[in-house]
Formats: sequence, C-alpha cells, structure tokens
Amino acid sequence: MTTSSLTSTPTSTPTPHAAWLPDAALDAVRTRSVAVLGHGLLDTVRAELSGAPEGTSARAELVVAVRDAVATPADLGLTTLTALPDPAPHGYVLVREAGRTLVLGHDDVAALRGFYAFVRETAVARLTGAVPADGVTASAPHQPLRMLDHWDNIAVHPVMGQIERGYSGGSIFYADGEVRADLSRVSEYARLLAATGVDAVAINNVNVHAREARLLTDGLPDVARIADALRPYGIRTYLSVSFGSPVLLGDLDTSDPLEPAVEQWWATAAARVYDVIEDFGGFLVKADSEGQPGPFAYGRTHADGANVLARALAPHDGTLIWRAFVYNHHQDWRDRRTDRARASFDHFAPLDGSFEPNVVLQVKHGPLDFQVREAVSPVIAAMPRTRVALELQVTQEYTGQQKHVCYLAPWWSEILSFPLDGERSVAQIVAGEGGGRPGGISAVSNVGSDEFWTGHPLAQANLYAFGRLAWDPTLRAQDVLDEWIALTFAGADDADLTRLRAVLHSVMDESWRRYEGYTAPLGVCFMVSPTRQHYGPDVDGYEYSAWGTYHFADRDGVGVDRTRATGTGFTGQYPQPWHDVYESLETCPDELVLFFHHVPYTHVLHSGTTVIQHIYDSRSDAVEELDGVEEAWESVADLVGGALPASFDARVRERLAEQRRSAIEWRDQIRTYFFRKSGVPDASGRTIY
Amino acid sequence: MTTSSLTSTPTSTPTPHAAWLPDAALDAVRTRSVAVLGHGLLDTVRAELSGAPEGTSARAELVVAVRDAVATPADLGLTTLTALPDPAPHGYVLVREAGRTLVLGHDDVAALRGFYAFVRETAVARLTGAVPADGVTASAPHQPLRMLDHWDNIAVHPVMGQIERGYSGGSIFYADGEVRADLSRVSEYARLLAATGVDAVAINNVNVHAREARLLTDGLPDVARIADALRPYGIRTYLSVSFGSPVLLGDLDTSDPLEPAVEQWWATAAARVYDVIEDFGGFLVKADSEGQPGPFAYGRTHADGANVLARALAPHDGTLIWRAFVYNHHQDWRDRRTDRARASFDHFAPLDGSFEPNVVLQVKHGPLDFQVREAVSPVIAAMPRTRVALELQVTQEYTGQQKHVCYLAPWWSEILSFPLDGERSVAQIVAGEGGGRPGGISAVSNVGSDEFWTGHPLAQANLYAFGRLAWDPTLRAQDVLDEWIALTFAGADDADLTRLRAVLHSVMDESWRRYEGYTAPLGVCFMVSPTRQHYGPDVDGYEYSAWGTYHFADRDGVGVDRTRATGTGFTGQYPQPWHDVYESLETCPDELVLFFHHVPYTHVLHSGTTVIQHIYDSRSDAVEELDGVEEAWESVADLVGGALPASFDARVRERLAEQRRSAIEWRDQIRTYFFRKSGVPDASGRTIY
Repeated sequence: MTTSSLTSTPTSTPTPHAAWLPDAALDAVRTRSVAVLGHGLLDTVRAELSGAPEGTSARAELVVAVRDAVATPADLGLTTLTALPDPAPHGYVLVREAGRTLVLGHDDVAALRGFYAFVRETAVARLTGAVPADGVTASAPHQPLRMLDHWDNIAVHPVMGQIERGYSGGSIFYADGEVRADLSRVSEYARLLAATGVDAVAINNVNVHAREARLLTDGLPDVARIADALRPYGIRTYLSVSFGSPVLLGDLDTSDPLEPAVEQWWATAAARVYDVIEDFGGFLVKADSEGQPGPFAYGRTHADGANVLARALAPHDGTLIWRAFVYNHHQDWRDRRTDRARASFDHFAPLDGSFEPNVVLQVKHGPLDFQVREAVSPVIAAMPRTRVALELQVTQEYTGQQKHVCYLAPWWSEILSFPLDGERSVAQIVAGEGGGRPGGISAVSNVGSDEFWTGHPLAQANLYAFGRLAWDPTLRAQDVLDEWIALTFAGADDADLTRLRAVLHSVMDESWRRYEGYTAPLGVCFMVSPTRQHYGPDVDGYEYSAWGTYHFADRDGVGVDRTRATGTGFTGQYPQPWHDVYESLETCPDELVLFFHHVPYTHVLHSGTTVIQHIYDSRSDAVEELDGVEEAWESVADLVGGALPASFDARVRERLAEQRRSAIEWRDQIRTYFFRKSGVPDASGRTIY
Repeated sequence: MTTSSLTSTPTSTPTPHAAWLPDAALDAVRTRSVAVLGHGLLDTVRAELSGAPEGTSARAELVVAVRDAVATPADLGLTTLTALPDPAPHGYVLVREAGRTLVLGHDDVAALRGFYAFVRETAVARLTGAVPADGVTASAPHQPLRMLDHWDNIAVHPVMGQIERGYSGGSIFYADGEVRADLSRVSEYARLLAATGVDAVAINNVNVHAREARLLTDGLPDVARIADALRPYGIRTYLSVSFGSPVLLGDLDTSDPLEPAVEQWWATAAARVYDVIEDFGGFLVKADSEGQPGPFAYGRTHADGANVLARALAPHDGTLIWRAFVYNHHQDWRDRRTDRARASFDHFAPLDGSFEPNVVLQVKHGPLDFQVREAVSPVIAAMPRTRVALELQVTQEYTGQQKHVCYLAPWWSEILSFPLDGERSVAQIVAGEGGGRPGGISAVSNVGSDEFWTGHPLAQANLYAFGRLAWDPTLRAQDVLDEWIALTFAGADDADLTRLRAVLHSVMDESWRRYEGYTAPLGVCFMVSPTRQHYGPDVDGYEYSAWGTYHFADRDGVGVDRTRATGTGFTGQYPQPWHDVYESLETCPDELVLFFHHVPYTHVLHSGTTVIQHIYDSRSDAVEELDGVEEAWESVADLVGGALPASFDARVRERLAEQRRSAIEWRDQIRTYFFRKSGVPDASGRTIY
C-alpha cells in the first residue's frame, strides 16, 4: 500500500477575477461629475474615479473629502444643512441632497472607506431598488482592529504547503522562496479589503518557520515593499514573529522574557522595523502552542511573554497581538477529566489585568478550533481588564475547504450577537462597549494566487462578509450577501441580476447549516480526516489521538460531558445564564447538546426527535438539499458567458460536484458508524450501508 | 491544529555493525591451515581467509574447492572415501575427516556458500556444543531464486522518504539523488547476503519514479558499478522498471505490449543492459497496482504485459519478475461483496499457462498485504503452469517497523510449510517440487545506511533468517536464531555466549506471536494508522477508506465474511481441504476466524473463550509479557561494553521502551474500541479506558 505524493502548490499568478470591485461597479459612479478634496489616500479615490468628469466642490454630483478640507455646507453647495457633520473617528458620513452625494471622511483613510461605501450603496440600490433617501448617514467601525491573518509560508512547507490551511493556490505575497518581486496582486487585494473595512493584515503564518523568522531581520526591505503595497488602501502591516526569535535568529542563547538582554533584543528588533515602516502595525504571536516556542519554557507566564514584546512596540504605537490558542496537544485520550475546551480559560483568565495596554489577546470564537458548530469561548467575557480580539476563520479549514459552498456570515452573526455576559453581545464585549477594553476582530484569510482568489468563487463572499461584519457586526448576513452580489455582478443587466440574486441566495443562505447538517452532528465537533488535512469524514479519526478532540461514542450514547456536576466542569467557565443553560440537559440548545453532554442515542431533543434519528435524518436531508442547490445553479446556465463568466461557472460546477461526492461520503460514513454502534434502525427507512 | 514535518532521512553512512560476519566468526576458522582451489569467487574465499596459514590440498585442515579443481579423494588426502561426491547444481558438500574439512562447491559461487556454511557451523558448534560428526553432508538451495527487493528511491520521495517502508536510515545504494560513489557498504551487504544464501537483489523501488526510471538508460554505468559490488559474492543484479518506460523515458507515445515498436523498444533496452552487465538478472515490475502503469491501460492482459518484457530478456537468459499484487485501491467501502482478498486470484489464475517461460510471477504470501496474520494466498497453488515466487516482507511495515522486536522466522516457517494444495508445502510448490514450475522466494529487504543495518539491531535476524529459509525452508526458526546468535556474538566468551543465547531466545522466539497478541486480533488485519505510515493503532483507520481493508465491527460482532455460503466467496479460491476448513466456523482455525468469518462477540473459539474475551485478554497478556522481555534484556546489562557493544545495547533499550509505549497504545485502543462497541465487560476485571 502506498500513499500519493503531496499535490504541488502553484506559484503562478493568473489574471485575477475582479471579485467585488469589477469595472462595472466603479463605472456606475464614474458617470457622475466628481470632486475629490484632500491628500493622502484621497489620491486612491482619484485613481478609482479616473475617467469621471470633473466637477467643482459646490456642483459635482459626487464629492469625496476629508473633513478638514471643507468648512461649511456652502463650500459644497449644500442647502439643507446648517453645519457640516463631524464623522466619528475612523468614520465617515454620506450626505445626500438633490441627486448629489458628499462623502466626508474623518481622515483620508475614512474618506476612502466612505467612497467605497458609496460605490456599494449605488450597486445595492440597483439590485434591491431601495434608493437611499436624502439626508445624512454616518458610519464608523464598530471594532478598533479589523484584521486578516495570513498563514502564508515563504518556503513551501513539506506538509502544510505554501499556505497552511490554504485552498486557493499559492501565496500572493511569496513565490519561489522569496517575497514576490511583483506585488500588484497584493495591491489589488488591499483594494478589495479597503472596500470591506479591514484595516490590518499579518503577512505570514503564525507558525513561524526558519525562513519566515528572517522577515524580522534581513527580510525587512521586502516587508517594507509589502507595506507600500497595502498603505494606499489604508491597510497596516503586521508580522507574525516567533517568540523564540532571540535564539532562532542566532543572537542570544535564551528567549526568557524576564532576561534584560531579551528585552533589549526585542526593543532593537522593533525599532529596526519602524525605521523602515513608520506605520507598521505590530507583531502577532502564537506561543506555547502546537510546538511553537513560548514563555513556559522559562517558567514564565504568558503575560510575561506578551509584555516583553509589547514594551518593545509601545514607543512606536505598535500593537502586540497574542493568541490565546494554548492547550496541551499531547493529551492522553484515556483521561476523560482533561478537557481541551477548558485550556484557554485556565491559562489566560487568571492573567486578566496583567498585560501591557498595547497587548491584544486574540481568542478563537470557540473553545476548540473553528468548528462548524461550537459554543462561544467563555474567555471572551472573562477578561474585562484585557483587550480581547475575537478570532474567526475565513479560510474554510473545517467548513469545506473552499470545495463546499459554505457562506459563513450567518454563523459569524450568531457568534457576534451572542449575549455572552448575559447582556452584551460578543461584538460589544470585544469592542469594549459598555465596559472592558477595546480589542477587535481578526480572522484567518482565505485568499491565494488562485484566479478567483478563494478557490471556490462563492467563497469570496466570506472574505467580503468578514470585512463588513468587522466594521458593523449588526449587518444581516443576507444583506451582506446582497451587497456582494450587487457589486460582483454589477455588469449584469437588471433581469439577469435579479435571477442571479435569487439563485445565489438559494445556494448560499442556508449553506452553513447544510454543511453542519451532513457533517459532525449536534456540536460534537471534529470527525474529520487526519490523513487528508481535515478534509472529509473520519468519525474516529481523532478519537484516540493526542489532540484532545473526542466524541466518546459507544454503543449506548455519544457526546462530551462538560458539566460541573458529572463532567469536566467546563460549563463553570461561563457567566450566567449560560452556565445554567449549558449545565442542564433541559435547557441546553439542541445544536450544542453533544458539545456539553454525553447522552443516550434515545435521548429526545427539544425538536422532538431522538439523537440517533436526528443524526440519521439531518445527514440525509442535507445531502438531498444539494439537489436543489445544483438545480438552482443549473437554472442560470443561460447566463454563462454573459452575466456569469464561463470560468466562474465552470469552477462552481466542479466544486458543486465535489461537494456532492464529499457530502455523500460524510452522510454514509456517519450514518453507518452510528448504526453499527447503536444498532438502532433508521425510522425513515433510508439505506444504511 | 498543525502537523509535524516529515522527519528527514539521514544519508550519511556510519561505520556499519559487522552483523553476522564479525571478525571473530572468521578468526575461528582462520586458525586452521587452509588451501583454496579454483578461480572466480574462490578469490573471495581467499580474501576471507587472508591471514590463515597456508596448507597443501592434501594436508590443509580446511580445503575449499570447486568440484572441477579436484579429481580424487587422494588429491585431498582423504582416506575414507572411494570417490569424491558431486554437489548438486548450485550446491556444495562438506566432507569431514580426522579434524579436516573439505568444502566442495558445484561451482565457484557454491564453493563460496559452502565456505560460509563452514564458518556458520563452526560458530554453531561452539554455541550448542554439537560438533559435526565425520562424514559427508550435502546442501543445495531449495529455491532457484532467492531474492531481495529494495524499495530504495534515488530521489527522496516527499511522502515515502528515501526507502519506501524503510526503517533503517538512508539507502546504501543512493545518496544525494545519485548512486553513491562509494559502494563499499553495498559490497559488505553482498557479503552478508552470501553467507545466508540470497542470490539476487533488485536495487530500486517497484514504485518507479521518474529519476529511478533512468537507471535503465543513462543510469546504466551506475547500475554496472552496483553489479560489480555484488558480483564477488554471487549476487545478481535486477532492476525494477516501469511498465510505462517506453513513454516515460520519452521515446514512444504508447507502452502497449502488443505494439511492435514497444516490443522493439524493450528488446533494445534489455540488450543495452546486457552490453554493460553480462550477468544481469532481469527486471522486476509492479504494474496496474496502486497507481503504477500497466497493460490494463491498453486493454491487454497481464500475460501480454509480462511477456513483452520477458521476450526482451530471453536472449540474454534474463528473468522477468512480475508482481501479482493487483487490486482496486479505489474500492467503495459500502460494497461488502467486493473483496480485495480475491483480486490477485481473479486477475491471474485465468492466465496460468500463458506466460513466457522466463516469467516469474511474484505473489505476496497472503491475499492482502504482509499482515501479521493472514491466510496463505491461494494464488500460489492456482498456477501450476506458471513459475510462481513467494514474496515475503523482511522490512517490518506491518510488524513493528523495526521499533518492535518481531522475529519473523516462525511466521515464515508456518507459511513455507503450509500444505496449500493438501499435499505439498508452499515451499515445495514454489520450488516446483512434485509438479509445476520452479519459481522461488523473494522478500522486501529491511536494510539501510543505519549503523546496525536494520534500525533495530535484533531485526538483523530477520534478514539472516530470510536468506537461510530461502535456501532451506525446513530449518527451524529457533535453530536459525541460534546460527545468528552464534555468528553475531562469536566474540563473546563461552559463558557470556550462553547467557546471551538464553536471553535472545526469550526476547525473540515468541516475539511475532506477542506482536500479534497486542495488535489486530484473530486474523482481522490492518487497524493501523493511516497518518503514521501504518505505525501504531487506528482501529477504524482504514474502515471507510478506498483501500479494501475492512473489519466491519459493529455492536454485535466483527470480521469479514469471505465464505461462499454467505460472504464474498473468497474461500472458493482454495483447494481442498482448505476450502472446507475455512468455509466452516467449526473448522476454521481461531487465528484466522475473523479473516474468514463475521462472528458475534460472544462466539466461542476452539480455545474455549469468546471472541471478545480473547480480544481483551490477548492484548493485555501480550503487553504484560513485555515486562519479561525487558527484564531479560536487563539481565545481561553486565555484558555491555564486553560481549554486548554499548551502542547495540543502547539501541535495543531505546526500541524496547518505544515498543512498550506503542504496545500499550495498541492494547488500550483496541480494548476500549471493542468495549465501546460490544458493551461486554472484561471478565478479567482489567481496566478498560
């Protein structure tokens, strides 16, 4: 028996798809007469509007300005306002009056964002017919940090490839073991992000290997080139650095954060970065996690570890982002008291209040690892004296790897709006709203050198939605999808656009719940293949492993008892009401019942069906729904080559076929597995193999 | 969650351990006065005896000669014989008289083998005290082909490493992407093999990648150098070639075996080899198997495929070895009627009689893939008009990967002596004894550039035993182990040697049965980890895969129904009595019950215990026995640095610790898995996690 070779990672850069900023979307605003007032990133607005007829600030149909560039409504020919509104910090206002629009940014970055908002609203108005009324609308980012983390390696990793958990070709930053000479694709990426609200990018993998560590030293001129490509779009550059850099880069024999020489080393390293990149964002660190070095090696806390780097960045207004993803990945599966879900809280909650002010603790949304369904991490509510950022995963590691359609905005909306401390939503907590300190939102990016950026063309919508929800977490997922459709297909005529809108909603709106439907049930998590990089099913794949991810299925029942009464006590990490809600089978929501409880297969859910019958039914129902998805896509076949580019259609079809194949595999393996274990026949009479 | 990198493969060549030909073993015969008569490989004998006092043929205490070099007993000063005996082809005779020994070879190769037999018998006599009596003893190889296959790659494979299924460092043939400049290690290897009876070596992996394919063309001068290193020890060189070579090497656009241009291509290719290596053995081919190209692509049979290569070799007396390991590795686990065990028979048995005379069909000992326990492959008895070679696996892919002690000679003895056609043993059938055509025995080698050749020092005994059993399949495994001990530890004094003998027998004699005891039970096969290259347990690891290796465990029972009555019908491929024996649960031996039958956990074995209790008990008992193994090894700690080299001892200890860790993992995972499935408590009361 032999094993196939690693698939090679393409490094070429095909002509990229325009994603949500096609010419047609810009052309729709370039028909207006325009005036752009201000410097800095207003030049980017000017470039976007090139070709539009120029107007005067008092007459132009579109005026884009920084607040400081204009004094009174009269300067802009406005008649209905007595004073110009002041945008909030980082925000903008749109003033509409008599067919004219004024975009007024708090600063040049905000003005650029406001301009893209106008482009978006113009497209959406055409899609939905809801033309904005005259008046003033203000917008400012809800989150102070809206960041994308890139898990790109410079040197292709023998197992993980060029982008760890990357499903979209090679890196747009790196090729052939170096930073690309041509960074035009990075500029285009920054432009796309600017239109969503993202304001920061970490350009390399948090698993920092030897080659990537050198970005901090002799690689700095290349980092500066990347920063130059991102800057015109208001995106700040961050670097992932190794906690072990002082040793790894060969200068010291320790990385002990309490060692003065180490403190000095980091101070020098940070200063060197700011010498070449004045607006550098800061460092991102994964420490003591899955093999990365960290402070534990020196008997120090994670506060000690984070603070030494934070102090180095502080004089330059830099931010230190420290991941809370710390757990024992050498767990003994025999030990049912140890619970990986507890780990992050156990490690970090006691450290609340001991981090430097410029430390942001980046916490994954769930206590495990970006599963299709998890409880929200209690760490997010546990550290009021710490800046906490929520970490999402745009790249679909556990949600179909950009082979399956899985529009994640509904899932993120659930997370962002979850009232974790009983009152405030997760989004409010990490924004520091109503107490606590402002953190932000970050996510692992899903882009690569792929023609469509994201492998699956429809996965573009996830990147788009992340940026939009980071700016405004109260947006509805369907509305965000409308925005994406309106922009992406701005070139379609009205009738075609209407049809595409209906089809894309029917394909995407329920895609995350459908994916959950055929994969791991009821919050039990994992069941993914260890051999195929987490793609596809393997119910027992991690069951006897050291990774701490178990479902404990036996002939009688399944699930993880995380209660205080009889289990690992994880529920005790939650504030009320969630502690009580999750502790009791009576109140625990169905979708998390196996996350919190080990129950018999015959346990009756709130939905009225048993656990085993739910497992059987949901897998089958979800696969059957895919018929409708494929039919829906088929229904716009006549648009191929017109409103729907042929290559876009071909890629979607190829992925839908693979999704069907894989979903059937998930369905059949899970149904068979649980039938073999439980012996309970499927009451619906559908085939079990 | 991340995955660790591939471990790198060392390419350096440390000073090799002397294995079973230490100076001390040769010194024991160099004390005698010697005479060596003849040319060719007698020069190798002369080199081995350098330093021994020279004698005359009529007086020397040891005379080594080819039969043709001497005419009468008087020539050799023998008084008790009236005529010199004639050795059988490829054989030798030893004549002992009055303290003198005459080694008489049928030819020079045989004389060399006879010489090593004398060295061996000298050592064994000292170990056991059984000094050979005066008289004539004759020996000739039972098998016409006694071959080792090397799965060595020239270019390190990204997944499989330098040696596929290699557990002993880098290749002794290749380093840095080329054939090694210094082949002294290959010469030393040939010498070791010569002392066992092996007469052929295939020098590259049957999975022929692009670089290795070129051994047939511009790599030939390097192949010739390897042949030069093997030749002085009577070892012929074979090449693994790709069936797709005509295309792969860029000359033709087809490899269709019935295409005249392809026939001509192979004829030219073969002639080119024999131009530079006159005694070249032939080609070894894996076709239509696990992704390798083959005749199926052209709608041709495997006879068509093999014969075109065989005809190319025939004018040069070359042999074409064709593997029968052909099966569908894209099987659907849902389909319980398809049975990989059937595949080789279904493909090949109908082709009996249609192969060229110089084709040898190489058949794995079991119908699956070198498992710790399988039924013997029925193909071996199914093709009387075909030369069939038995294929064993010395490298411990599925038997502990040279981390676990697993002396395989007892297993091979069972296979070789198995009366597969109701009368003749497997060894007799493949030798063509009593009908049929002579084939041979081959095996995948376990050596590499490791200091001890085989990773685990005790795994040397497997290589030794393979060669000895290929020469004489009737040898007892314990006696072969005595030979290996006597030679390997020839430098020990009598008392130490006695102690080592006892300890090594207690560690090794039962090691295969012990390994079976803690791994997959009752012939069910596999249950190995797909993520760790088959090392360690993963009960469901291949259960829902495409590899055709399933155990079908559910809450009621386990095993594969391969009966004709209700299963896949595989039992019907067996001649009587085995068809009946295996078909019936009443007569099927316990150790194969799950190979042939799906039974309830409560099924009572012939041993009197239930299947489930057997699973529980055997796993635990086997691990407990490891205590005794470690104690035994500890008992010779005082010999370390003396009779037992410190590095040898250190390596064995390191491996014993890993064996214990791994065995416990096997025990616990299997016990827990089956307890979760069956719900039956362990009657012994031992802990189940």
